[in-house]
Amino acid sequence: MPGIIKERLFTPGPTPLLMEAQARTLTAANVHHRTEAFRKIMTETLELLKYYYDTKNDVLIFASSGTGAMEGSLTNLVSPGERVLVGTAGKFGERWLGLAQAYRIEAVKVESPYGQPVNIKEMKEKLASDGPFRAVYIQATETSTAVMNDVRTLGEAVKNYPETALVVDAITGLGTSNLRIEEWGLDVVIGGSQKAVMIPPGLAFASFSEKAWGLIAKAKLPHYYFDFAKERKNQAKGETAYTPATTLIISLNAALEYIKKLGRENLIANAALLAEASRAAAQALGLKLFAASSPANAATAICAPAGMDSGAIVKELRTRFGAVVANGQGSMKGQIFRLAHLGYYDIADLFAVFAALEIALLKLGQKVELGSGVRAVEEAYLRHAA
Amino acid sequence: MPGIIKERLFTPGPTPLLMEAQARTLTAANVHHRTEAFRKIMTETLELLKYYYDTKNDVLIFASSGTGAMEGSLTNLVSPGERVLVGTAGKFGERWLGLAQAYRIEAVKVESPYGQPVNIKEMKEKLASDGPFRAVYIQATETSTAVMNDVRTLGEAVKNYPETALVVDAITGLGTSNLRIEEWGLDVVIGGSQKAVMIPPGLAFASFSEKAWGLIAKAKLPHYYFDFAKERKNQAKGETAYTPATTLIISLNAALEYIKKLGRENLIANAALLAEASRAAAQALGLKLFAASSPANAATAICAPAGMDSGAIVKELRTRFGAVVANGQGSMKGQIFRLAHLGYYDIADLFAVFAALEIALLKLGQKVELGSGVRAVEEAYLRHAA
Repeated sequence: MPGIIKERLFTPGPTPLLMEAQARTLTAANVHHRTEAFRKIMTETLELLKYYYDTKNDVLIFASSGTGAMEGSLTNLVSPGERVLVGTAGKFGERWLGLAQAYRIEAVKVESPYGQPVNIKEMKEKLASDGPFRAVYIQATETSTAVMNDVRTLGEAVKNYPETALVVDAITGLGTSNLRIEEWGLDVVIGGSQKAVMIPPGLAFASFSEKAWGLIAKAKLPHYYFDFAKERKNQAKGETAYTPATTLIISLNAALEYIKKLGRENLIANAALLAEASRAAAQALGLKLFAASSPANAATAICAPAGMDSGAIVKELRTRFGAVVANGQGSMKGQIFRLAHLGYYDIADLFAVFAALEIALLKLGQKVELGSGVRAVEEAYLRHAA
Repeated sequence: MPGIIKERLFTPGPTPLLMEAQARTLTAANVHHRTEAFRKIMTETLELLKYYYDTKNDVLIFASSGTGAMEGSLTNLVSPGERVLVGTAGKFGERWLGLAQAYRIEAVKVESPYGQPVNIKEMKEKLASDGPFRAVYIQATETSTAVMNDVRTLGEAVKNYPETALVVDAITGLGTSNLRIEEWGLDVVIGGSQKAVMIPPGLAFASFSEKAWGLIAKAKLPHYYFDFAKERKNQAKGETAYTPATTLIISLNAALEYIKKLGRENLIANAALLAEASRAAAQALGLKLFAASSPANAATAICAPAGMDSGAIVKELRTRFGAVVANGQGSMKGQIFRLAHLGYYDIADLFAVFAALEIALLKLGQKVELGSGVRAVEEAYLRHAA
């Protein structure tokens, strides 16, 4: 039965695109970045980003993936011979370690097993006993395991160290969780375009506290493209140090307008509802959640049934229904699959993907009560809907 | 809970757009219709339309809605003082009567109640006893009631009348049912762009048998814009008599390429499966189907529960889930709602809309077993899927 199959992304980035934001770029085919018109768009977009971030701190935009801003958050903050503290419990936490290694910076790590949040208590202890650290690195949401970290408690601890910056990879945390950037002392907060902000990959964002700017002024690791102070000076005028990704910025502007109209808090509540519904539906289908505690709103990591490769589920969903979910990464590959619900997803998307999952499991030999996963999604909706 | 709600069309026209066909027009912003480049596109598109129609007859394209081609099928075939036979069982059947009246042509009608197919036996009797008729008019699928008519039997009867043309409004019949145009003697077959062909409104199509061309040559009703013989001469060269809707034709070209790749028969089977699943799901939810027999593949007309206005269901689906279904038309308004599945729909669309319908009914005070409608869709899928 080779009928129509629509491709539907359920991956934690890229996420479904907001087509009205895509369309906006088409009316600006000939935009040049060194013009008053573009400076106006850039300045507006940076203001909208502050709304999205819920911060009064400076926010900057980079033409790069999120990893570029992560690298910059090492090279712009740290000097040779200084040490950093890294909290890790997944592939993205490990990226901080890889960055430190690349620049020969000693990283003290606090490591939790995959599926668990980073042990913040242990991080506080290391801060007190093992410093000084120029910077502390963590994920707000560890996308590889779909776990949320307690950056609030960590932030309140790092506040006591005036020479230490807290850098938060919130690439999937922004738009899915309430981050009180100033209140919690999150000095650098990194975002990416292909996540809750509903546009394609290609842009990274970062916000900076005054404390961060003070430390940046003293840092000596080599860097050129990711030069935060230089970008700050340029972007204050609606300029960029190097050529900006103009069409992505125009899309971003349109997407942030949509988000402002929807309401930042409603975007977050939407992800939280879909996450709650996804967990309930997975459990209704007899599946185990990978994140036993502190699950993320951005995505839900679900364990394959015992003896089944999660890749088989990924494949069934893709070939039968065009539903693209993510396999586990690294050692989690084959064990789990990840269903995203950050950004432009709605409850009807979940209705569809859980019915698809029911059939996928059935076809893979599992016992499934058809409709039971969808019913759990419906019940979650009814718990919150008027 | 004002979360994200994506708009999803489940109306029997307009239907969901094939975005890759929309995108194609963007690369042709400056196309001019009196050029070799456009003539090539037009000629290719007409060839692809023959594939879509499954006919060797001429097919023409008009910049109009389907109604324009319906009007032309009266004014190009009939002369003042001649009579026509009309089969009607819904709002679109009645349109033939309105057209005949506008041109003061006597129409003999064979009328069935809404929800039933046209009585073909009675049409055959009228043909034999009440003629001569210059043309016979009918719908392949009556969209207002979601009923399919037996145009095959009618066509085989009209074949015996060399001075009578059979005109079939297949605006929602094309791409949803197997029409054997030559074999059954369907002399003029009318289509529209906003239906199974997955592009926006604005184009009508029609195919013409040699018998039709012979009768067209003799017809005397006034017409100017819809001049079939003139268009035939022009379109044979990739030209059009009047300015063509260039961007829609470019979209059509791309959409027909997609359909050719998918396979015409798979497009039809897709609609048939979704129709079967929709009927099963509605019945699983305790709802009555409006078409007791001969339901269309293009859309499913579902009766509201006793005492409930179908408009309330339409409204709940739209406001809660962004799912746009059609109310009944005319006297059927408030009684039924129509869920379309012609063109660019897939099974996951049905998963989503039936879960949404379950909640809509529940919120309107109906007793609903959550998941039971979706389960029926899943079971229909499993009956046909490998």
